[in-house]
Amino acid sequence: MNQKLIFSNDFNAALDEILADCDYNRLFVIADVNIDRFVMPRIADNPHIASAVKIVTKCGDVNKNIDTLAEVWSGLQQGGATRHSMVLNIGGGVITDMGGFAASTFKRGMRFVNIPTTLLAAVDAAVGGKTGVNFNGYKNEIGVFNEADAVLISSRFFDTLSLTELKSGYGEMVKHALLSDRNSLNEILDFHFEDVAGDTLLALVAKSVQVKKRIVEEDPTEKGIRKALNLGHTVGHAFESLAMKRLAPVPHGYAVAWGIITELVLSHFALGFDSSLLDRLGKYIVEHYGAFAFSCDDYDNLISLMRHDKKSSAGELNFTLLHDVGKVEINCNVEEKDLRDALDITRDIMHI
Amino acid sequence: MNQKLIFSNDFNAALDEILADCDYNRLFVIADVNIDRFVMPRIADNPHIASAVKIVTKCGDVNKNIDTLAEVWSGLQQGGATRHSMVLNIGGGVITDMGGFAASTFKRGMRFVNIPTTLLAAVDAAVGGKTGVNFNGYKNEIGVFNEADAVLISSRFFDTLSLTELKSGYGEMVKHALLSDRNSLNEILDFHFEDVAGDTLLALVAKSVQVKKRIVEEDPTEKGIRKALNLGHTVGHAFESLAMKRLAPVPHGYAVAWGIITELVLSHFALGFDSSLLDRLGKYIVEHYGAFAFSCDDYDNLISLMRHDKKSSAGELNFTLLHDVGKVEINCNVEEKDLRDALDITRDIMHI
Repeated sequence: MNQKLIFSNDFNAALDEILADCDYNRLFVIADVNIDRFVMPRIADNPHIASAVKIVTKCGDVNKNIDTLAEVWSGLQQGGATRHSMVLNIGGGVITDMGGFAASTFKRGMRFVNIPTTLLAAVDAAVGGKTGVNFNGYKNEIGVFNEADAVLISSRFFDTLSLTELKSGYGEMVKHALLSDRNSLNEILDFHFEDVAGDTLLALVAKSVQVKKRIVEEDPTEKGIRKALNLGHTVGHAFESLAMKRLAPVPHGYAVAWGIITELVLSHFALGFDSSLLDRLGKYIVEHYGAFAFSCDDYDNLISLMRHDKKSSAGELNFTLLHDVGKVEINCNVEEKDLRDALDITRDIMHI
Repeated sequence: MNQKLIFSNDFNAALDEILADCDYNRLFVIADVNIDRFVMPRIADNPHIASAVKIVTKCGDVNKNIDTLAEVWSGLQQGGATRHSMVLNIGGGVITDMGGFAASTFKRGMRFVNIPTTLLAAVDAAVGGKTGVNFNGYKNEIGVFNEADAVLISSRFFDTLSLTELKSGYGEMVKHALLSDRNSLNEILDFHFEDVAGDTLLALVAKSVQVKKRIVEEDPTEKGIRKALNLGHTVGHAFESLAMKRLAPVPHGYAVAWGIITELVLSHFALGFDSSLLDRLGKYIVEHYGAFAFSCDDYDNLISLMRHDKKSSAGELNFTLLHDVGKVEINCNVEEKDLRDALDITRDIMHI
């Protein structure tokens, strides 16, 4: 993996640097209608952007599907894209995932650069090579592992985001800090969402992304240690799916933050994770993310969802847990009874 | 690339050998309705095949599209496929290309084995990692480079093929022999299509596939020397497209064989390819493949098609040519005038 990661608030210089290295015959931008309206005007004077063929898609996860993908492919075709063309995916995770998959499969592979405009995409989707779309109601069911040639991460777009969107991204940063070290974790827990388009957040993002990058480099196709990144996600995905069934979706990073609580409780049970740190994280998450409303009547449903997580096999309850900050244990099988206890304690921590 | 290639007419033992190495939780077979009718009954008693979830698709290149692909993905989903499942693609090139792409993209990649049932697929599509489907009228517009885990090549299915289908596959074998050495070429020109399901043809196929495998290993994503495999194809694809426009399609390997004539004439012009060998190949091809009906009125059309070949860039006339058997030169740019002369000579050789 020789992917270039650039963290910069000087967008023009950063894009120059990335494209100077690439020999391509035509440049394409893939963005959704919201990005086209709120972000593109800010960078429209960049000569690369101005010269690019623009493909504008519908918005949101609900349109992250084969039909929208086919529209992107058609756009590439009509714009005369060849294997020697270059794609810039500008947007949130839906665009970096779907645009990355479109580029990876058009004429068996064009190069692409991800330019995340949301905090969540910057710290999660844009880096790591997971591309894809939803299919028949399953998330990211169709896709490939393929790294962007480069990722340009800038916090200067983050002032287009709501506080909810910012916190959603920050949930993944809490996770990365837990996979890293206590100093990183302290820095993360001390940031207060002031000046989100400035350099303080950008520096935290850079540190956070490096945690992910190191893990992905060891295991790009998720056969082993990449599962470390799944911390908080087995429970988090179950919360997310339950919320979806109730037709009251929750932001991904919120679900992950809540999932982290339960999985740190499990880490305490199974691996002796420090209970005072668990307490501190629990308080931080409840303060910033509130509570996920669930009762013991939901346990059967949640546990069934966890048994069918994409990363589990044969229906067992498989978790990534922590001995301590930065000390990860993947593939921990958990007894259903312990999981029920952990869900009870999660509700105590959430005061529900 | 640690792809396993097995050439065997003992199907059961060969499949045992391949699957013994693989740890998978569920086996899928992808085949089209013709294969399901004419080939599957021959192998239905194999315990692996008998236990597999079968996904049967529509037939032919006209159905090698996103709609059929989506049916295959749905079949995998409904059959409970996971990343730890295994796919057997049993059929011609349409099935190995489309099934390979389906497996490469389902949950970001399952493993797959190609079992070509046509000579053309055995010597061409099944090996080399090109997967994909047609899109918006362009052939193989969407796909990825991804090798099958293993390819099981058996000539025991070839007696289900018409002589036309056999000769079509053989066209690619003539090409591989030209990329190899004079002995291989002599062997190829001496075979007479007797006992096609037996071991003589299987041995020739094995030799032919090794030529392709060696070249693909050097350059799996076609950035350079893999273009050697394009010999005969720049002209051949133009013949094929012209025939398609006339609503009188010709088999791929026939078009390649005819294309070889023109490209050997160009090789003689540009690189001094031996004229007596050109003469011998021309006679062989006309004897076995007949002539492609075209006149000087078709030249503009053909030349325009060649300028827009997927492997050309910027509209030049780009060919893979030969100094001699086994001495390849890729990226030869040819003047339009020389190409017109070569087409004239091709028609002389074809007596048209």
